[in-house]
Amino acid sequence: MRTVGTFAEVRVAAPSGAALVPTMGYLHEGHLACVEAARARSDIVVMSLFVNPLQFDSSSDLDRYPRDLGRDAILAESAGVDLLFAPNIGEMYPEGPATRVRVSGVSEAMEGAHRPGHFEGVATVVAKLFAGIRPEIACFGRKDAQQLAVVRTLARDLSFPLEIVGVSTVREADGLALSSRNVRVEDRESALGLSRGLFAAAEAAASGERLAAPLEQIVTEVATDTGAKVQYATLADRHSAAPIEHLDCEAFLAVAATVGEVRLIDNVFLDPDGHADLGTRLAHPSILYEKLNL
Amino acid sequence: MRTVGTFAEVRVAAPSGAALVPTMGYLHEGHLACVEAARARSDIVVMSLFVNPLQFDSSSDLDRYPRDLGRDAILAESAGVDLLFAPNIGEMYPEGPATRVRVSGVSEAMEGAHRPGHFEGVATVVAKLFAGIRPEIACFGRKDAQQLAVVRTLARDLSFPLEIVGVSTVREADGLALSSRNVRVEDRESALGLSRGLFAAAEAAASGERLAAPLEQIVTEVATDTGAKVQYATLADRHSAAPIEHLDCEAFLAVAATVGEVRLIDNVFLDPDGHADLGTRLAHPSILYEKLNL
Repeated sequence: MRTVGTFAEVRVAAPSGAALVPTMGYLHEGHLACVEAARARSDIVVMSLFVNPLQFDSSSDLDRYPRDLGRDAILAESAGVDLLFAPNIGEMYPEGPATRVRVSGVSEAMEGAHRPGHFEGVATVVAKLFAGIRPEIACFGRKDAQQLAVVRTLARDLSFPLEIVGVSTVREADGLALSSRNVRVEDRESALGLSRGLFAAAEAAASGERLAAPLEQIVTEVATDTGAKVQYATLADRHSAAPIEHLDCEAFLAVAATVGEVRLIDNVFLDPDGHADLGTRLAHPSILYEKLNL
Repeated sequence: MRTVGTFAEVRVAAPSGAALVPTMGYLHEGHLACVEAARARSDIVVMSLFVNPLQFDSSSDLDRYPRDLGRDAILAESAGVDLLFAPNIGEMYPEGPATRVRVSGVSEAMEGAHRPGHFEGVATVVAKLFAGIRPEIACFGRKDAQQLAVVRTLARDLSFPLEIVGVSTVREADGLALSSRNVRVEDRESALGLSRGLFAAAEAAASGERLAAPLEQIVTEVATDTGAKVQYATLADRHSAAPIEHLDCEAFLAVAATVGEVRLIDNVFLDPDGHADLGTRLAHPSILYEKLNL
């Protein structure tokens, strides 16, 4: 695996047909599942690693975001990444960028409502990665379901010639969806409220419940009882990310909650027939908590 | 020359290294100068032809914009265009696009102030053409000087790997800058106010004037005396498109005015030493007014 810092080097090393896995680093098995999906579809896998300040609505959240390039490089290489693109801020935003990409509609509910500017930051950096790297495939985790909808809409609207692949959420053994933020969670039991609420609601959907309100209520009640402070629980159309009242299309049921000082999100994908993608489950502790020999 | 209607066909016919000339059609010698600049730099010249509704701030202006694909195809082919990309609205905006690209700063003065949303429409369609066609070079006329600055900023900020080439304004024999809108001008004499004002100011700059206010005043006075109704006359930094008070950087002096119902813009490029690019001049009537044998 090579590590490069400029778009020009990426284009020389991966001139065409690459599969891109955009990340903000501090890798876990969710990212590695995206690498696996990329490897299955392309001979060249490029991982980008950049903690994008544009998508943080709070500078303290940006400051606290965990970073460890040495660790990430080892994990990326062992997962089969061919090229690690780790630009510095000067390569990405040399002059404080004047250009912003905004995806209306799909960006407005849920995370968009709770994190002003977040999806504009995501859309801008993703457009830049697509423009500068020219991948044929880009893999994103389903855990960020609304982000996935934003990216799909962006790619379609701007005619980027690539396929967007959504990769199932990977969960820790106890059900907590993998997130780099998990390392900052102190009250583990409370954090499990999100996934437990979603699983309970998915069971209700499997048993025939199609109304959003009771499904959302199950999530909120279970998560709250477990100790998480719920910001929203919303059933949304998977493509438009618009809240819906009935489960009558491809959808996701999303929850955001704070646990102590850490804000977590999670979701399950639901089909109109009640079938759910709950994600996959690790049988062992996540590499998030592993000390690597650097 | 082939004419195609989809991005996919363009990418098959011009897989890499193409030079793109984006147009809204109703071609004149200004567009053909861009084709010439493109041919000098690339073996494959793609011209796009799409009257982009997003960049019109008035639907009546959009409706009145002249269109003649048959004529444009003949002119494009004889100028050496290899591939004419003439998409319909369904290819460009299949679902009413949710995605918008905005370039702040450079979009705000002059045309940005007088045509709300105009540059957002330009930036969005140009980003889409760059993303979907992947040209190595794109040629734009200097007549739209602020647009050129917007496009350069956009390409840099989003890391599109291409070279933007600005092509000197082509003028009719009497000095009027070529524009598809010229066919709608009834009071020709008044329309000459724009170029005469700019030329007079360029002479003052050549004679040592470096202050914006007197240069702008010359433009306004000459244009107004000639019968044009001036909206603005502004000396601006060529790269940031920010109004400046002294000619101490690469700049352009721009004017917008209405002549009857037609709104016209024009500019001259000025260097800090007072040297000007006034554009080139046709020795014969423009093809705008020619009947072609279709």
